[in-house]
Amino acid sequence: MNRIYLLVNINVMNKEKEFNDYRSRMNDRLLETDDKIIKRIFNLDMNAFLDGHLNKKTKELIGLTTSLVLRCDDCVKYHLGKCHELSFKTEEIIEAMSVSTLIGGTIVIPHLRKAVEYWDELNKHV
Amino acid sequence: MNRIYLLVNINVMNKEKEFNDYRSRMNDRLLETDDKIIKRIFNLDMNAFLDGHLNKKTKELIGLTTSLVLRCDDCVKYHLGKCHELSFKTEEIIEAMSVSTLIGGTIVIPHLRKAVEYWDELNKHV
Amino acid sequence: MNRIYLLVNINVMNKEKEFNDYRSRMNDRLLETDDKIIKRIFNLDMNAFLDGHLNKKTKELIGLTTSLVLRCDDCVKYHLGKCHELSFKTEEIIEAMSVSTLIGGTIVIPHLRKAVEYWDELNKHV
Amino acid sequence: MNRIYLLVNINVMNKEKEFNDYRSRMNDRLLETDDKIIKRIFNLDMNAFLDGHLNKKTKELIGLTTSLVLRCDDCVKYHLGKCHELSFKTEEIIEAMSVSTLIGGTIVIPHLRKAVEYWDELNKHV
Amino acid sequence: MNRIYLLVNINVMNKEKEFNDYRSRMNDRLLETDDKIIKRIFNLDMNAFLDGHLNKKTKELIGLTTSLVLRCDDCVKYHLGKCHELSFKTEEIIEAMSVSTLIGGTIVIPHLRKAVEYWDELNKHV
Amino acid sequence: MNRIYLLVNINVMNKEKEFNDYRSRMNDRLLETDDKIIKRIFNLDMNAFLDGHLNKKTKELIGLTTSLVLRCDDCVKYHLGKCHELSFKTEEIIEAMSVSTLIGGTIVIPHLRKAVEYWDELNKHV
Repeated sequence: MNRIYLLVNINVMNKEKEFNDYRSRMNDRLLETDDKIIKRIFNLDMNAFLDGHLNKKTKELIGLTTSLVLRCDDCVKYHLGKCHELSFKTEEIIEAMSVSTLIGGTIVIPHLRKAVEYWDELNKHV
Repeated sequence: MNRIYLLVNINVMNKEKEFNDYRSRMNDRLLETDDKIIKRIFNLDMNAFLDGHLNKKTKELIGLTTSLVLRCDDCVKYHLGKCHELSFKTEEIIEAMSVSTLIGGTIVIPHLRKAVEYWDELNKHV
Repeated sequence: MNRIYLLVNINVMNKEKEFNDYRSRMNDRLLETDDKIIKRIFNLDMNAFLDGHLNKKTKELIGLTTSLVLRCDDCVKYHLGKCHELSFKTEEIIEAMSVSTLIGGTIVIPHLRKAVEYWDELNKHV
Repeated sequence: MNRIYLLVNINVMNKEKEFNDYRSRMNDRLLETDDKIIKRIFNLDMNAFLDGHLNKKTKELIGLTTSLVLRCDDCVKYHLGKCHELSFKTEEIIEAMSVSTLIGGTIVIPHLRKAVEYWDELNKHV
Repeated sequence: MNRIYLLVNINVMNKEKEFNDYRSRMNDRLLETDDKIIKRIFNLDMNAFLDGHLNKKTKELIGLTTSLVLRCDDCVKYHLGKCHELSFKTEEIIEAMSVSTLIGGTIVIPHLRKAVEYWDELNKHV
Repeated sequence: MNRIYLLVNINVMNKEKEFNDYRSRMNDRLLETDDKIIKRIFNLDMNAFLDGHLNKKTKELIGLTTSLVLRCDDCVKYHLGKCHELSFKTEEIIEAMSVSTLIGGTIVIPHLRKAVEYWDELNKHV
């Protein structure tokens, strides 16, 4: 029994790293396929969030809130990571996600729970 | 034949007013039902977009972009109306919607077309 | 101008009939294709809403509320028609739809507006 | 190897408890943020499923079936737990979920599998 | 009254042209904004459906069936137009759409109705 | 620590078998309920992918790409398994999925990652 709890703890502590590692490894695998559409979508995705008429911070909030209403946990994690790098405050992130929850309904709540858990973990590693 | 084209023109010119009139009339009808859940959702909806940790403009962008990825034309129109009142520039609105289209995919494009058409119309009436 | 308002009125009054006529005509067209999958889905759809372990009324409420969270206006209209035949009270229908709106979020509201408008029209023709 | 199978068994047996514990812990965390919108959505969510014009049992069926068509596993689990407390029979739950599957399509089936697995587990603990 | 029926007939006959005209006009408007993301998505969209490892016909079927499960009427119309140019047989189109309906559920049916109506119209103009 | 890495490895190697075992066990459980709608949907699902006006390979591509835009990981895995049996080439599968990603947007990417990972694993077991 103790062993199992230990296992769970290790998993929780590695959540951020595990997510990023898997993401990088599989992105590399996808780019290695040499599929032009995938390559261009990936390239577009990188450029779309740079400063433009709207600044980076606003764009990451758009990325976060649209991902949340679409209930894409991995997309939410990715944008939370970016929001963390851009020094958003917790209350801003929570407020943005609460607007998403209102728009997307209570079915968004399970994803909101995971999002806050991940956000809290990001903040432990500052 | 001429009469028909005339009809179409009148419709197009009234799109904004028609949308708002229908919306108001049916919202009144819904509130008249005295259903508590609906009343509270409507009330929440009004409060959620006021200045808070995030300002009104940021919140309206969230409203606009989440509505667009969820492909809700009427929601998009509503938030475009609010964005117009808050003096967003066309290039900001287009950029926000382009990020939504990237995230939500090419199935968002038909809704993007209607959105830009409505935005252009809002700008004629300044 | 007067002619146009007249046109709109006629349209509104025929909404229920127009919906049912189009639905019947196109269903006939679909069944005429002799596609086995479509035929069997249509047949299943008819049987699924008969009395079983759950009664018809409960099943129609399920049909209505799931259609609403999925934001399918025509499906909502169809089930509202059935709910009307089964003598649901307005406050029951409104309450069922308010739960759907809470679950599906404020993006459901534009569909809720159309649903109430259609329900009110059904009640005019009793 | 034996140890690993043991681990899996323990996990399966704790599925219900694990789900509820995580849910409670993260709900507490969300309420602790003091975000008004989240608080009010949570409060609404509790009130919406009380007896009203429709009774609790009907409302939980609505909660269950709408969650299933929206393919929200955690929402389905939550409502299955409530349905279990309200003494629904297995054949009623299965029938309700079969209607959802017809409406939402075969992509609902993977979620139906998890739902039945969870329902069966709830019934072991009566 | 007669005038109104006449109006409806004219509308139906022009459905294909009306759809294409609106689509072209608004696409031009979108490209005119000079937004790089939109431009690149449009460009990608054109290239993605050319012959590659899969041929054009297979890709258009993918475009049609994914658009149908996502319930995007305008996307469906667009791909039906392309399928028509590529000389698909009616029974192939119907079968492809029936598989989509099974996967996406009965909520796809209203979109299937519109799709068949549009397909039939395309075939009148051969 | 070593023990944990071992556990993870075993899990990864069994991904395909684990998926199929769970799927079979729960499908049996569902059919055992004797629910007519579920039985008929399962039966339809089997028949829909047989050779017809379109051949099996085309239908499996439709199954794969629609499942991907609907972001149903288990449905994607199932159809990847079938595509593997039907000897699709990796570049065909990647291209089909890249079209889906364009249509469904960047929120499809996390599901694309899992899909490629599963496809690669299927190919190890040839």
